Amino acid sequence: MPKHPARKNGEALRALLRLPPGERVELAGYDARATPGAPGGRRAGLADTARTGRRLARLQERLWAAGRAGDHRRVLLVLQGMDTSGKGGTVKHVIGRLNPAGCRITAFGVPTEEERRHDFLWRVRRALPEAGEIGVFDRSHYEDVLIARVRHLARPAEIGSRYGLINDFERSLAEDGVTLVKCFLHLSPEEQGRRLLRRLDRPDKRWKFDPADLDGRARWSAHQEAHELALTRCSAPYAPWYLVPADRKWYRDWAIGRLLLEHLRELDPRYPEPGFDVAECRLRLLERM
Amino acid sequence: MPKHPARKNGEALRALLRLPPGERVELAGYDARATPGAPGGRRAGLADTARTGRRLARLQERLWAAGRAGDHRRVLLVLQGMDTSGKGGTVKHVIGRLNPAGCRITAFGVPTEEERRHDFLWRVRRALPEAGEIGVFDRSHYEDVLIARVRHLARPAEIGSRYGLINDFERSLAEDGVTLVKCFLHLSPEEQGRRLLRRLDRPDKRWKFDPADLDGRARWSAHQEAHELALTRCSAPYAPWYLVPADRKWYRDWAIGRLLLEHLRELDPRYPEPGFDVAECRLRLLERM
Repeated sequence: MPKHPARKNGEALRALLRLPPGERVELAGYDARATPGAPGGRRAGLADTARTGRRLARLQERLWAAGRAGDHRRVLLVLQGMDTSGKGGTVKHVIGRLNPAGCRITAFGVPTEEERRHDFLWRVRRALPEAGEIGVFDRSHYEDVLIARVRHLARPAEIGSRYGLINDFERSLAEDGVTLVKCFLHLSPEEQGRRLLRRLDRPDKRWKFDPADLDGRARWSAHQEAHELALTRCSAPYAPWYLVPADRKWYRDWAIGRLLLEHLRELDPRYPEPGFDVAECRLRLLERM
Repeated sequence: MPKHPARKNGEALRALLRLPPGERVELAGYDARATPGAPGGRRAGLADTARTGRRLARLQERLWAAGRAGDHRRVLLVLQGMDTSGKGGTVKHVIGRLNPAGCRITAFGVPTEEERRHDFLWRVRRALPEAGEIGVFDRSHYEDVLIARVRHLARPAEIGSRYGLINDFERSLAEDGVTLVKCFLHLSPEEQGRRLLRRLDRPDKRWKFDPADLDGRARWSAHQEAHELALTRCSAPYAPWYLVPADRKWYRDWAIGRLLLEHLRELDPRYPEPGFDVAECRLRLLERM
């Protein structure tokens, strides 16, 4: 039974996709092909995504401008999901509609030797957006309670302690003016199979394929459980998780664009008032035209 | 007399806009409203820029894919020019057509205290593109021989030594697989006046205005001389300067997109051959579909 209720006219998509903090998450209850809140089918979704992109770009410019004048607010989009769930596609098709000068995008892979010498949040802290920026994490600190759990990359007690550390970290970010938008791209194993096959069969997609993806697929249920734990334990009113059905790419792009738009509208960034005498500058300028 | 010769059909724009290494540059000889090599007027230029953007995005993906598989080549676009010449606009309208995940964009402002504690190339080295990336510098190490010269921010002997250091640095980059595309956005003082006035008069543009821009304008000829010196002394076959007439925004975007395209085509990045057994992975995948 699909858990996503029907969206009432004009209701925020946030309310529809948010995983309620405190409730235990069971992924089996969510249909990865669902399109909750969508304005219609694929065609209508794509058109609305383009419109959303233009609105996002305008709000991004205001956020950036305010950031230049002392407003320290910023946005951090966190993308998590199984291989091929569309984290990279979201960056290309949603974030690609913004001004790249104001975006700070980081893809987190297997930790480097330097990264391993520090605590697991070290590399994440270094990649945070600055005032006025929109940061994007393609994978994130959540890998340290996801793949780390599935592959036993750390002692159970250490992994166990990380949920609390993540919550503390995210609370401090929120208190420091970071709007967290955490999206879990919910993909079905059937759709992942189709996408992996496409990567193998298309010479221009093959470079994205990694045989290790097959191992991840073999441990599908262990990955799902690790996700359920993370989504349950690390959801808070100041940093909720959104569950984005991701079997349909157009819906994924539409929904994430829309979630960003709702958050940016709430932030309501404003062009700053000039910190100089406009009339005087105008005179000085006209003297030398 | 405009120095830009007419472009023969199909001839590279690079040949047309490149400042010949070794020749003394005199900016007065170049018309900032010229549109050398353009496919027609504004409308045709905008259409061709969109086409160029799609081609750039395809080549960028190949460059990125090759970079994942050991090809360490990368591109660095350096943008220099007077205030309002369109460095930020180029990032928005040209680089904005690429996948932001593969771009590394840095705007260099007044050096921070930390940056001042190091040699002038330190902050630039930290912002270089990595394998497969397209780096963009909005201002660059050239500020240290431009504004530094005009405002006497260092001793003349020190500034004098920097041209050679820049040449050595850029040669080492070229030898290390960096394709340098250095663009000087050539703006007329009349057009700058119009743009500054627009910034003052439009509330949504005012945040971009800095009264210090008026000082820069007051020392226009000192700035031009500093540019002429840098363009003359720091042009080399492996790192030439392109003079891009910048009074017309559509032309600036068209020309810079086109220059990037010509360079990427020459690099001819290829999707890497798979480093795994495709047939075997296919079988393993199909067993679990």
